[in-house]
Amino acid sequence: MRSKTKSASAILIVCDGLGDRPTADGKTPLQAAETPNMDAVSEAGINGLMDVISPGIVPGSDTAHLALFGYDPYEYYPGRGVFEALGADMELREGDVAFRANFATVDDSMRIIDRRAGRKGSKELADALDGLEIDDVQISLRNTTEHRCALVMRGDNLSKLVSDVDTHVEGGVVSECRPLKEGSAERKTARIVNELVRRSYEILNKHPVNEERRQKGELPANILLLRGAGSYKKVTSMHDRFGLSAACVAGASLYKGVAKYLGMTVIPVEGATGKSDTNLGNKAEAALNALRSHDFVFVHVKATDSMGHDGNFEGKKEMITRIDRELVAELKDADAYVVITADHSTPVSIKRHSSDPVPVVMKGEGVRSDEVKHFDEISVASGGLCRLKGLDLLPILTDFIGCYMMYGT
Amino acid sequence: MRSKTKSASAILIVCDGLGDRPTADGKTPLQAAETPNMDAVSEAGINGLMDVISPGIVPGSDTAHLALFGYDPYEYYPGRGVFEALGADMELREGDVAFRANFATVDDSMRIIDRRAGRKGSKELADALDGLEIDDVQISLRNTTEHRCALVMRGDNLSKLVSDVDTHVEGGVVSECRPLKEGSAERKTARIVNELVRRSYEILNKHPVNEERRQKGELPANILLLRGAGSYKKVTSMHDRFGLSAACVAGASLYKGVAKYLGMTVIPVEGATGKSDTNLGNKAEAALNALRSHDFVFVHVKATDSMGHDGNFEGKKEMITRIDRELVAELKDADAYVVITADHSTPVSIKRHSSDPVPVVMKGEGVRSDEVKHFDEISVASGGLCRLKGLDLLPILTDFIGCYMMYGT
Repeated sequence: MRSKTKSASAILIVCDGLGDRPTADGKTPLQAAETPNMDAVSEAGINGLMDVISPGIVPGSDTAHLALFGYDPYEYYPGRGVFEALGADMELREGDVAFRANFATVDDSMRIIDRRAGRKGSKELADALDGLEIDDVQISLRNTTEHRCALVMRGDNLSKLVSDVDTHVEGGVVSECRPLKEGSAERKTARIVNELVRRSYEILNKHPVNEERRQKGELPANILLLRGAGSYKKVTSMHDRFGLSAACVAGASLYKGVAKYLGMTVIPVEGATGKSDTNLGNKAEAALNALRSHDFVFVHVKATDSMGHDGNFEGKKEMITRIDRELVAELKDADAYVVITADHSTPVSIKRHSSDPVPVVMKGEGVRSDEVKHFDEISVASGGLCRLKGLDLLPILTDFIGCYMMYGT
Repeated sequence: MRSKTKSASAILIVCDGLGDRPTADGKTPLQAAETPNMDAVSEAGINGLMDVISPGIVPGSDTAHLALFGYDPYEYYPGRGVFEALGADMELREGDVAFRANFATVDDSMRIIDRRAGRKGSKELADALDGLEIDDVQISLRNTTEHRCALVMRGDNLSKLVSDVDTHVEGGVVSECRPLKEGSAERKTARIVNELVRRSYEILNKHPVNEERRQKGELPANILLLRGAGSYKKVTSMHDRFGLSAACVAGASLYKGVAKYLGMTVIPVEGATGKSDTNLGNKAEAALNALRSHDFVFVHVKATDSMGHDGNFEGKKEMITRIDRELVAELKDADAYVVITADHSTPVSIKRHSSDPVPVVMKGEGVRSDEVKHFDEISVASGGLCRLKGLDLLPILTDFIGCYMMYGT
């Protein structure tokens, strides 16, 4: 039984890929950064480590966020494409299959020369493919950032269980899309994808945008590669599941997509880019405004993850220092429970997501403050939260807020 | 495979609702109380925090105790009414549906004026309804304490999936009992409940006890309200599951009911009231006696929870001090493993159960003593048990006792 005696609100700050491993001189970027504000939250709050999915399982950003919002990804994950399409403000209906897509350059023999082509002019190229029909399937394509697009297929009997066309490496030949399961929906979807990729080459290779690129000596963005198929299904919103009116403050479209999928209000923020130039001051202001009319405000910062993928220790450290100064400083004393954590670790030493648990701190009325004084991967290990799973975070928070689940009497 | 090389016994002391949150001056009632004996157990033993159901899930007392005894409540919880009936020494058969019931005052339009009426004379009122038959269904009613009763329905095709009649608030109109699932058993049970409530008003409103109350200017206890339907099913006893002969020392009937449900011997204790006036010395003596003939003795103290519900910090602190001095002092050096814990937190600041994990300590031969020196919600977080789930406690204890589960060879 869920009780609704809501009496407080919460801000969840997720620094993407924040967790790291100590480098040669023994410090993680979070330990090396200047974080007086995060440390103040740690000192006032309760700290711990969190396995966002499960110990040893490396989280994707998409599955990790579902877990942080209390949705078991093994039950609720629809596939990445769905989040990309929702993040791009595309409308989805039950049964639609959505993909991530990107413009690339191929030669006559379908060998991939550049996986990320057409950082300019992509909108016109997307428009040239948007609205295509293949058999009974309608294709919607929307350019999001640079060479990236979201694609939605609508028609009978489609499935997300098809392989990626994008080979994820350059120099290879465009892959054939294959059914990942024996079934008519899988065969049909794979056939539509392959036909779409073939037609995208026909249309894009001779498109004026690409003629112009060739004249300038640039590679043509002459094919559309698809990956990350997802199948849309409506889920019970955070409001209906937890009694929370929830808002999202994020720059990158994936996170807005996850938020929309769960029925959060996505707050538009000027200058929130999802990159290291993002305007953190505007995000803080948007979060504080959202708090006036929402129980739960999710604030996402992407660049810590990007720096990890780039293996850029100094960049990650600087980004954390900026988050501390420009975001956490503004939010830490809000009249709300404040949680700071990450969706996963992205250690600069290995330039990929890892399963190292992430630090988590929670501050607010009645929280059992512990002895931890620094917010970092090592210090929080002795905190009062001990070691949590990602799925446990939201239930704990809802109990503090007063929208709690009770089992028994 | 379960081994039976039992070589020791255990006492499990459960202080109901013991866990709390720090108040303005930074201390929980457990931190503020004088607890030299609990602290001695902590210093000698291994400590930790325990999510009795799961992190963020607020436990009921009933489901929590099932978990503490090693029975997954999601599998074994029969509904509260079953425990109340067993605790009232009523006989239950497979298929019986049991309820908590209480006498209340309603006006002519069935508006509830007092949810807890008839603290005296309730036995006669219960007798007036006991033995009623509605269609093929036999009703047994027993008065337990004050206005409270346990009720058992026996007949074909009954179900616990019906809604409460008690509105849980005063001023409202008595609710109609509704089926919580589409089915003939649910429809039948709801119909019987509604008819019973109607008849209870007919019979009680004109009952001599109530005539007398009216003459004294008191409100009549003129209706019986039902809630907490439970469906009885025999479960494998603690003895058969864990090889433990188990005994229960408790005052409040719910806990005796849970104990009976699992096949424990319920030890009658003079002066064990389930209230703050309970005779803790007698309970300690009863526990030590029970230890001579049982492997596992469960000792329950209720008043810490009641103080939490009342928001009474000083009362909770004093009760803990009394438990330390009158109960733990007597039991801590028994020739047995000693465990002290709670079924859930009941913070005085919020006057309800919460999901804040409870402190747990275990002392005895071979236990890995840690650095914790104080038994409280903050200190135990750094203990050697780390953060457990309630269902893990009994298996750990059975291994120390020597009735362990081994998996593999």
